[in-house]
Amino acid sequence: MAHPTVGWIGLGIMGKPMARNALRAGFPVVVWNRSRAPVAELVAEGALEAATPREVAERSDVVVTIVTDSPEVEQVVLGEDGVAAGIRPGAVYVDMSTIAPGAERRIAAEIVGRGGRALDAPVSGGEQGAIAGTLSIMVGGDQATFDELGPLFSVLGKNVVRIGESGAGQIAKACNQIVVALTIEAVAEALALAEACGVDPARVRSALLGGFAQSRILDVHGERMIARNFVPGFKSSLHRKDMRIVDATAREASLDLPGARLLLERFDQLCDRGDGELDHSALRTLIDKEG
Amino acid sequence: MAHPTVGWIGLGIMGKPMARNALRAGFPVVVWNRSRAPVAELVAEGALEAATPREVAERSDVVVTIVTDSPEVEQVVLGEDGVAAGIRPGAVYVDMSTIAPGAERRIAAEIVGRGGRALDAPVSGGEQGAIAGTLSIMVGGDQATFDELGPLFSVLGKNVVRIGESGAGQIAKACNQIVVALTIEAVAEALALAEACGVDPARVRSALLGGFAQSRILDVHGERMIARNFVPGFKSSLHRKDMRIVDATAREASLDLPGARLLLERFDQLCDRGDGELDHSALRTLIDKEG
Repeated sequence: MAHPTVGWIGLGIMGKPMARNALRAGFPVVVWNRSRAPVAELVAEGALEAATPREVAERSDVVVTIVTDSPEVEQVVLGEDGVAAGIRPGAVYVDMSTIAPGAERRIAAEIVGRGGRALDAPVSGGEQGAIAGTLSIMVGGDQATFDELGPLFSVLGKNVVRIGESGAGQIAKACNQIVVALTIEAVAEALALAEACGVDPARVRSALLGGFAQSRILDVHGERMIARNFVPGFKSSLHRKDMRIVDATAREASLDLPGARLLLERFDQLCDRGDGELDHSALRTLIDKEG
Repeated sequence: MAHPTVGWIGLGIMGKPMARNALRAGFPVVVWNRSRAPVAELVAEGALEAATPREVAERSDVVVTIVTDSPEVEQVVLGEDGVAAGIRPGAVYVDMSTIAPGAERRIAAEIVGRGGRALDAPVSGGEQGAIAGTLSIMVGGDQATFDELGPLFSVLGKNVVRIGESGAGQIAKACNQIVVALTIEAVAEALALAEACGVDPARVRSALLGGFAQSRILDVHGERMIARNFVPGFKSSLHRKDMRIVDATAREASLDLPGARLLLERFDQLCDRGDGELDHSALRTLIDKEG
């Protein structure tokens, strides 16, 4: 069976390597991006270029967006010359951005209203996962559409789970960001305590990795913190954005999540002092003693 | 080379299976415990019984204590008929309890003053780890004594790390308890949000296990939370005790650890409402909506 043509909107730190993986796997890829440089790069590798998101949709069987936040998704999908204006009957719109579950459901309904189908499929695993094609993909939408997209998802990620109906992928992503944020804080506080008590944090990390405290974050971000390497990775400003989504989603569900609230405050602190461009493991730097 | 005789003080949920593993590996074991039942059990399996902690020390090359908290350790070591009164010249006292690093250093100094040697070697891995001999053991004390105890530690645990000098094992354990507490809260809040939004928490757990949110706690305690199985495991009242140690240790080091402070409050809430006997994963129950 021939590969469906994949439209790709958003060629940032995540989107570009993902689109490249689709291209290398043999999918025809039609790209659009706000800035021009990554478009030229992918066109040189065989991608086709479209002039607008609408044109991407007009030429594609599947349209992926992976941009920063709800307003950007709304702009490229519902705005002038947006995806919704060009979506083909039966084509699948897949949002791989991380946005609020409620906004996602509204956008999906709009696509369905125009004869398309929609999935939300946010990812976890960072730039490295995007490059290696080992992302976790959390999917909301109906089972048949999910199954149909299996070949594309399997090129982009390793752990692809359908969570539930439309919006459920975004809810899972919000859950993911809670766990990641709090675990980074946990590792940061532990390593800060070790250092402040004159104990080698590398030995503490090593000991903790063998027990109940084990996590991928203790492994990867623990090492970053010890090396003081805060080159992203995943920017603190983006994790702040995600914690705002968590906060809003929890409020709508009448839930009080004190840990998530604390981590929104921590990211606010970090970003407000000008460190939003640093990797989210830079939460560690909030604990250093003054002076 | 003959196995050294191991004195064992404390036959609780952790101590009993650990002493049994030493016995089965061929170490002569001399036991004492506040309550009589586990003593009889181990004596039936070949252990010898002593009338007091002092007598344990008088008959042993290595003396292990694993009891609840600093006052208990001080009682069995420094109290009347305690370990310190009976320690042999050159014998090694090993405290595997979780207590404050400062208290540990004072107790170790007392033992050294009486001609003995001392290690602190708190553990992580729970009852299952104690039974299976797969505990993490975090050791403080000098390298030569640590090396000498290698054969015993290897029977009790899998990941045995010397962290540093006296007290360093307890500092690593405090770090461990920060990470475990905050990660449990992270998983609890994430699964609570999923449920409140009408999404299957089991699918969310499964998706998150494949990405950056992966942790042993998401795996083990996530499953407990979904099944609402809060049979300990590790009691909330003990984790509260450990978070108090963390709090005091952070204060002494002039560190502000907001996550650790939050988790002390959470465990206080849980215990004060009468749920201190539940597994620490019962933090999940604090997030349920009222009514």
